[in-house]
Amino acid sequence: MVPKNAFYAQSGGVSAVINASACGVLQTARQHSEAIGKVYAGRNGIVGALTEDLIDTSVESEVTIAALRHTPGAAFGSCRYKLGSMDADRGQYERLIEVFRAHDIGFFFYNGGGDSQDTAYKVSQLGAELAYPIVCIGIPKTIDNDLPITDCSPGFGSAAKYVATALREAALDVAAMSRTSTKVFTLEVMGRHAGWTTAACALAAEHEGDAPHILLLPEVAFDEERFLAKVGEALERYDHCVIAVSEGVKDRDGEFLSASGVADSFGHTQLGGVAPLITNLITTRLGCRCHWAVPDYLLRSARHIASETDLQQAYAVGRTAVEFAIAGQNAVMPAIRRLSDVPYRWDIIAAPLAQVANQEKLLPPDFIRADGFGITDAARRYLAPLIAGEAYPPFKNGLPDYVKLQNVATPKKLITEFTV
Amino acid sequence: MVPKNAFYAQSGGVSAVINASACGVLQTARQHSEAIGKVYAGRNGIVGALTEDLIDTSVESEVTIAALRHTPGAAFGSCRYKLGSMDADRGQYERLIEVFRAHDIGFFFYNGGGDSQDTAYKVSQLGAELAYPIVCIGIPKTIDNDLPITDCSPGFGSAAKYVATALREAALDVAAMSRTSTKVFTLEVMGRHAGWTTAACALAAEHEGDAPHILLLPEVAFDEERFLAKVGEALERYDHCVIAVSEGVKDRDGEFLSASGVADSFGHTQLGGVAPLITNLITTRLGCRCHWAVPDYLLRSARHIASETDLQQAYAVGRTAVEFAIAGQNAVMPAIRRLSDVPYRWDIIAAPLAQVANQEKLLPPDFIRADGFGITDAARRYLAPLIAGEAYPPFKNGLPDYVKLQNVATPKKLITEFTV
Repeated sequence: MVPKNAFYAQSGGVSAVINASACGVLQTARQHSEAIGKVYAGRNGIVGALTEDLIDTSVESEVTIAALRHTPGAAFGSCRYKLGSMDADRGQYERLIEVFRAHDIGFFFYNGGGDSQDTAYKVSQLGAELAYPIVCIGIPKTIDNDLPITDCSPGFGSAAKYVATALREAALDVAAMSRTSTKVFTLEVMGRHAGWTTAACALAAEHEGDAPHILLLPEVAFDEERFLAKVGEALERYDHCVIAVSEGVKDRDGEFLSASGVADSFGHTQLGGVAPLITNLITTRLGCRCHWAVPDYLLRSARHIASETDLQQAYAVGRTAVEFAIAGQNAVMPAIRRLSDVPYRWDIIAAPLAQVANQEKLLPPDFIRADGFGITDAARRYLAPLIAGEAYPPFKNGLPDYVKLQNVATPKKLITEFTV
Repeated sequence: MVPKNAFYAQSGGVSAVINASACGVLQTARQHSEAIGKVYAGRNGIVGALTEDLIDTSVESEVTIAALRHTPGAAFGSCRYKLGSMDADRGQYERLIEVFRAHDIGFFFYNGGGDSQDTAYKVSQLGAELAYPIVCIGIPKTIDNDLPITDCSPGFGSAAKYVATALREAALDVAAMSRTSTKVFTLEVMGRHAGWTTAACALAAEHEGDAPHILLLPEVAFDEERFLAKVGEALERYDHCVIAVSEGVKDRDGEFLSASGVADSFGHTQLGGVAPLITNLITTRLGCRCHWAVPDYLLRSARHIASETDLQQAYAVGRTAVEFAIAGQNAVMPAIRRLSDVPYRWDIIAAPLAQVANQEKLLPPDFIRADGFGITDAARRYLAPLIAGEAYPPFKNGLPDYVKLQNVATPKKLITEFTV
């Protein structure tokens, strides 16, 4: 077997542990020099492939690669860029082949969420369509936890641990202030269509009356009057009310409550700002003092409070992606399979990309409480193990000590430029 | 010496470590039963004293009291309630004396920021004015770090560590996304008038070009054109721009950029929402894609990322408050005195409440960079030791394991009710 080079890239919104997947890919590839030559990382995802901006990861030391395991963000840069269909955008695909051929790339590893798995799937079809043999493996990553087949998506467990921790802490604050000041606190949580991260906030509660008192999930149409009645009920019983609201909460017509009007390159509306909107509603209608928080990027980058379980899974899907490729698998994504809840046991299976691409896994109905404002015990059993364990990064001078790669570009071999 | 009971209460916005001060007070008082009988905690600060709602801390176990050290929020409830002047509001003061006399309270410990030290100062004047002997000690606490005399205020170091960590993490996110998506990220930071917490964000940067690229401090009047030029410059050089903005940033006329129009009981305008405002400005004028975050209560409650230095100081001021009281000091506040920057050494001195009450310590001019958008090396030397050391709380089931007190009310002795 003559070794071929590999292409690895990170795509879509980042997470606290996507670089742990990168670490898994790179360390495992280095152990298999009989099959894999260099690993080139795309600078900014697929954009790096299209523009022939390939980072030579072989110049990075073992120590640096190991430090990716505790560094959030996307070390090689990410992108929001979706390939068109093979028919409409044939030029892009031909360009990819041209770049892959020029750099002798025989393995394509793409690390991302649903849209990114779609990209991986399309690239996997290149082999047949354009007669270029390439082994294509998707690597799961999304804090939204909306990928199908896999038990969970790496990145989610850490986001879940972050929101549940933050909510528990902020709730103690509100409970302390409510006598003479703030009575309602609303935490806005990321998650465009799926309410997994919002649901995870409920883990903050251990006993009856503990916050959060209300979840507003994107799977449940927002009903203003029912919601306000619920807030009033919490105020009556506890003198304060803590709410976790998904950025993607929708009204009965399926319209986002808060849309900034900006759409990203995938055509998704950019959201954000539903917490102030909910707060305004409560202040106007109930007249009590409110606070709100929108952690936004803090939520998905919070490596300092990462879940050890999540970290292990993120590393494992990276490692397994390479093992699958070497073993001759193609057009698959390593997926986590749950073997038991308590103790949490899991292994990794191969999910066909054709079944993964462009699918969104929402909260199932049996995870949502009958009144729509909370989660069931089944949801709790599912969520609990995913936030287990602490995986603190090293600290230096009081702050997490994150690594920065050199990200040296490989000399270009093509004369043609490609503009993205 | 016949032991007298003590009153302890927490006031104003909470912090990650105010309960560590409570722990210092309670543990030290228990060691000095020759001087101090029971410690009654006011439920919700001074409100608990006025309404005779006194929590009997003696029923709490040693283990529970020790757990206060790692629990954020205000375990006995806090308040935003300012006593009027002795002339205008004599009834309140007479009521306090009545309650103190009824419960044989000879020590008054009040744990809070500038407004709370004012309350402590006023109570300290009771002795003379109303012929009731009471030893009165203020205990410093404010994430805003705006108390005078003391080197820093307990609560600030942890808030500083939180914002610098969060900003470093979110900045990696933006840097990864900027090629095809978000180019500007704005983090809104608490701090009504003083820019200490916003300044602390600058600790996230180690090297030239590191985020944050721009600080908007409340001490520097906001100039839209100069600001936009600075954003443009960062985008030019780094292709992304990370901004930390104080909630209290003001225009040239001294008006808050963003005021919600709600005032609290101290008469302060409730702020929040300047990050979306700044973002809107950038989107409109520069046309690039932006994200923003407002951590709000998450910032001041983040015990999971508390500073060990801050924790030690919070405990020490609580312990020393009791020691001062027993040693016969009165109308003072334990203040931290810096002995050296590197290594950071400090001790505790007694600051007269008369000099502490109602003073706000702003960032000194030599801590602010000439262009107004950053801090100086002097500021860095001051700030760096305050975030040093990690003091993780214990975790259970993947989440911080915080303690909840029983908070048993002491039977009332007075017939009269007092309405707050």
